[in-house]
Amino acid sequence: MINETYDVIVVGAGHAGCEAAAAAANMGSKTLLVTMNMQTIGQMSCNPAMGGIAKGQIVREIDAMGGYSGIIADKSAIQFKMLNLSKGPAMWSPRTQNDRMLFAEEWRIALENTPNLDFFQDMVKSLIIENHKVTGVVTSLGIKIKAKSVVLTNGTFLNGLIHVGDKQLGGGRMGEPRAFGITEQLVSLGFEAGRMKTGTPPRVDGRSLDYTKMEEQKGDENPQKFSYSDTPKLTKQLSCHIVYTNETVHEILREGFDRSPMFNGTIQSIGPRYCPSIEDKINRFAERERHQLFVEPEGWRTVEIYVNGFSSSLPEEIQIKAMRHIPGFQNVKVFRPGYAIEYDYFPPTQLHHTLETKLIENLYFAGQINGTTGYEEAAGQGLIAGINAHNKVHEKEEFILNRDEAYIGVLIDDLITKGTEEPYRMFTSRAEYRLLLRQDNADIRLTEKSHKIGLADETRLRNVENKIAASNELEEYLKSTSLKPGIINPILASIESSPVDQAYRASQILTRPNMTLEKLSEIDFIGEKTKEFTEEVKEQAEINIKYKGYIEKEKENVAKLNRLETIRIPDDFDYTKIGSLSSEAKQKLNKIQPKTIAQAARISGVSPSDINVLLIYLGR
Amino acid sequence: MINETYDVIVVGAGHAGCEAAAAAANMGSKTLLVTMNMQTIGQMSCNPAMGGIAKGQIVREIDAMGGYSGIIADKSAIQFKMLNLSKGPAMWSPRTQNDRMLFAEEWRIALENTPNLDFFQDMVKSLIIENHKVTGVVTSLGIKIKAKSVVLTNGTFLNGLIHVGDKQLGGGRMGEPRAFGITEQLVSLGFEAGRMKTGTPPRVDGRSLDYTKMEEQKGDENPQKFSYSDTPKLTKQLSCHIVYTNETVHEILREGFDRSPMFNGTIQSIGPRYCPSIEDKINRFAERERHQLFVEPEGWRTVEIYVNGFSSSLPEEIQIKAMRHIPGFQNVKVFRPGYAIEYDYFPPTQLHHTLETKLIENLYFAGQINGTTGYEEAAGQGLIAGINAHNKVHEKEEFILNRDEAYIGVLIDDLITKGTEEPYRMFTSRAEYRLLLRQDNADIRLTEKSHKIGLADETRLRNVENKIAASNELEEYLKSTSLKPGIINPILASIESSPVDQAYRASQILTRPNMTLEKLSEIDFIGEKTKEFTEEVKEQAEINIKYKGYIEKEKENVAKLNRLETIRIPDDFDYTKIGSLSSEAKQKLNKIQPKTIAQAARISGVSPSDINVLLIYLGR
Repeated sequence: MINETYDVIVVGAGHAGCEAAAAAANMGSKTLLVTMNMQTIGQMSCNPAMGGIAKGQIVREIDAMGGYSGIIADKSAIQFKMLNLSKGPAMWSPRTQNDRMLFAEEWRIALENTPNLDFFQDMVKSLIIENHKVTGVVTSLGIKIKAKSVVLTNGTFLNGLIHVGDKQLGGGRMGEPRAFGITEQLVSLGFEAGRMKTGTPPRVDGRSLDYTKMEEQKGDENPQKFSYSDTPKLTKQLSCHIVYTNETVHEILREGFDRSPMFNGTIQSIGPRYCPSIEDKINRFAERERHQLFVEPEGWRTVEIYVNGFSSSLPEEIQIKAMRHIPGFQNVKVFRPGYAIEYDYFPPTQLHHTLETKLIENLYFAGQINGTTGYEEAAGQGLIAGINAHNKVHEKEEFILNRDEAYIGVLIDDLITKGTEEPYRMFTSRAEYRLLLRQDNADIRLTEKSHKIGLADETRLRNVENKIAASNELEEYLKSTSLKPGIINPILASIESSPVDQAYRASQILTRPNMTLEKLSEIDFIGEKTKEFTEEVKEQAEINIKYKGYIEKEKENVAKLNRLETIRIPDDFDYTKIGSLSSEAKQKLNKIQPKTIAQAARISGVSPSDINVLLIYLGR
Repeated sequence: MINETYDVIVVGAGHAGCEAAAAAANMGSKTLLVTMNMQTIGQMSCNPAMGGIAKGQIVREIDAMGGYSGIIADKSAIQFKMLNLSKGPAMWSPRTQNDRMLFAEEWRIALENTPNLDFFQDMVKSLIIENHKVTGVVTSLGIKIKAKSVVLTNGTFLNGLIHVGDKQLGGGRMGEPRAFGITEQLVSLGFEAGRMKTGTPPRVDGRSLDYTKMEEQKGDENPQKFSYSDTPKLTKQLSCHIVYTNETVHEILREGFDRSPMFNGTIQSIGPRYCPSIEDKINRFAERERHQLFVEPEGWRTVEIYVNGFSSSLPEEIQIKAMRHIPGFQNVKVFRPGYAIEYDYFPPTQLHHTLETKLIENLYFAGQINGTTGYEEAAGQGLIAGINAHNKVHEKEEFILNRDEAYIGVLIDDLITKGTEEPYRMFTSRAEYRLLLRQDNADIRLTEKSHKIGLADETRLRNVENKIAASNELEEYLKSTSLKPGIINPILASIESSPVDQAYRASQILTRPNMTLEKLSEIDFIGEKTKEFTEEVKEQAEINIKYKGYIEKEKENVAKLNRLETIRIPDDFDYTKIGSLSSEAKQKLNKIQPKTIAQAARISGVSPSDINVLLIYLGR
């Protein structure tokens, strides 16, 4: 028994746990991070990369709020790419390749430098529950540690079962023990639990590959970064390589299908649809002659390589035999085989928007335990759980991000409203207001909000205020600067845009397709003005002007729907008493207990007419 | 099934396994290193330090032969101390404090850069044996990998059982799974197995300590290093701190004795005598009012602290409660509790000098599996096992270091001749020729020998040849340089040594107590000459001159005993037929099957008269 009573105990030190612990501690909670092994804090269990489409936006949001994922990713980056630059700014998505060892080390050092945060190495095997409230944890050593709140972030460790071909091994990750006890206890308390599955590809020896047979994929020429803070920019980068499977590879993989736990019925649980195993891809897309693979270095100094796209739970020898027929892989040596892992999760409809469980007060869930997949999704949930655990303990308001404020808001609202039966991954398409939820404006959206609750610090707030002021100044300048035909027509001609016959505001010219602020800056006096501003400010002003119409339209939609958000439904509302609701709607609404009409409307199976019935019943 | 047939498979990637793999691969063997987790290669399981008395000499020996331990220790050092400088040069012992994370990382990177060395992450659960020869391994995934030889370096993982108070957990280290299967198989093949025990102290949060209550222990002002190669010297260092337990601490610890697995009979196996737990120290030395503790940082950036001297398997809360009464520890926060671990070992009398097992050909054991304790002891054995596995596979001669050549020779000869019933640790007192086995001359003793078998590289050989030549030159100069009374007497006066009344050779003057080469160099022309030489060369020449008499005496003893070493005893010699041998001698000799009379003489229970009987029987 450790005598301390912690405000917040976080169980698990992956992406979710680390963010939860950092947030709670930075807000002032006496926080304890309990992990089975302090050497594996902040492990990237799967791919050595952060961000990507929609996920990169989440990392920017976490950073804007004062979370650590962006800073850690920047410090351990070996390559940076802004994806989707050919599309509109809502689709721009930052992504880093990372040094796996350094990423974990930077997490650990960052957490060690966080005030109020203690560490303890042990496995939590049960929770202490009193009157439907969690009051502490019990470890495998039998140590009881008291807490006012507990955040569970167990990742794939709860009853983890690893599959390679017809072999099964208990474990939370390959080579690491699994955790047990918590699921059983929660189920006995009335929680619904399920099993999910995920997988990881083989890691191979880079010395055994022939890169001349592959296509090099370099980082951006002018690498940016995740964090709005002063993390360093990359000055050198490592390349990835692209290569494709072929019919021979597929043929060999098919040989192992009868020993595949995915196909022979051993694994019943569902894996991530958008991160399928190579055998799944071959099976589901039998017509495809090839699949793309990314050959990703695992760090600055190691020769280990991550074969992205080749996730597999086929027997080891089949994995190797098939890989040998990938161009450049003819002599491949394998460090660790790919494998699948099954683990326990709890359908997230059992949670409030704060990620507190409905059944047990002060108990929060974040990450894969909620049925999500992805480092960024986990980290985002961890941050929100950590904030809310702190706020609850300190009798402060719930902290909820709305769907028009952040991808993290979309993520959590989707989870708790719709639940998920397969590992949930974020996409830009899941966000109805994605033009608002851009990677460039996460600070504008979220930093002030986070500063108000005591998380984002003064420097972050000042930075974003300065950015907004500067962007406004530049926008005003462009709106008030008139360009005569003689000045602007040569530039319009250079982008094959039709000439003007009268003066136009610079801001009007900027809205034309293919016109950019950089192009406009070729005009002397505009160039003189724009060079006063940072790249970030110029980008912000340009987006605000170019996409003004779309952005305003989207904000109107938000306002409309927000009216529904303000119509609250009483707690523990009994829908069965409303006879005219469809029976499916009754069942779903009773289960999920939405807090607002808007949330009710997002539940699958609840129709617009059900919503009308509800509105009438509530007197609207 | 991986189709490759390896020359050498090394099982386990601790100090022994890493050195074995590096040696075999560097000599040209196709080598595979199999480890349960590639993230934990080169882990320091216990103290974050390398070297120390007798152990530092072993690291120097490993380095002189082209092993990696010295290089890794240098690259990850945070502090260097040459211990015992007030004693004679035979006692000088280098020691580093190390950054635990960096040590592991440097090992991994060094191994990845070793040609001929492959890696595979999996647990080996059995060996493939054909006709009393090992021909491969089978992993937990059921993968069979063929090999011409196998080196087992399982550390504490074989059926590892962790104890904290009355709690027991299976594991190879805290938070890591144990290995199983191998012991059972080896016992079924006729091997004798036993259990040993070791322990580790708690790791604590450096932020919770008050260092003003402790005594600072800085590194050397002019830090040296382990490696004879061009590793960098430390330019900054971290301090350790010294602090003492007291009666209150002891009183509290005693409260837990009835729940101590050491005292209540739960742990039957024997722990390392010279690295006892704190409860053991209190128990065995009840009269001592205090015990010294070293408060050691775990790395450059981490706040984690290793509490050296406080190893314990008492219940967690007793460990913490007691620590709180150590000066500076009043608010201590614990990251990980101390614990004891029991594991399987194989009495090393079952081995040849090459570390090959007598029962199964081409099977080698190194490290804790042989009943030793200590990183350096493990690494030294790993090196020898790796070399001999390579040599055997390539039909080359056995590589054995004699007791007069290296501490590693003493270590292995002790192990296989005398066996060990408690974890064996090296001491200078175990070496009968310790004046020859110094840290300064490990390169002179061993580099050429290692170069001959293809391990130490050309650069190392050239370096040592240059060092010997330069030292000879300097010694010759000192022997041929005459110092007149007028020149030398002022210097003799300054060290309160009696004046001379005639000219003496510089070398003669140097043999006087308190006289040093540095002092002699105050004479202009000697100073001019000595500054042509490196510190290492000056040290070498000085030792050779000052200790000439002792060294020559020791060499004579070696020569005498070496005559006994040359008297070989036939293989499978049946001692029962020599009636006049004592029955104890018959039993021991039959069991150990010494190869030479000298080895027979070192067996405990074999008396000088038994040796005489043997000599007569063998016709001498």
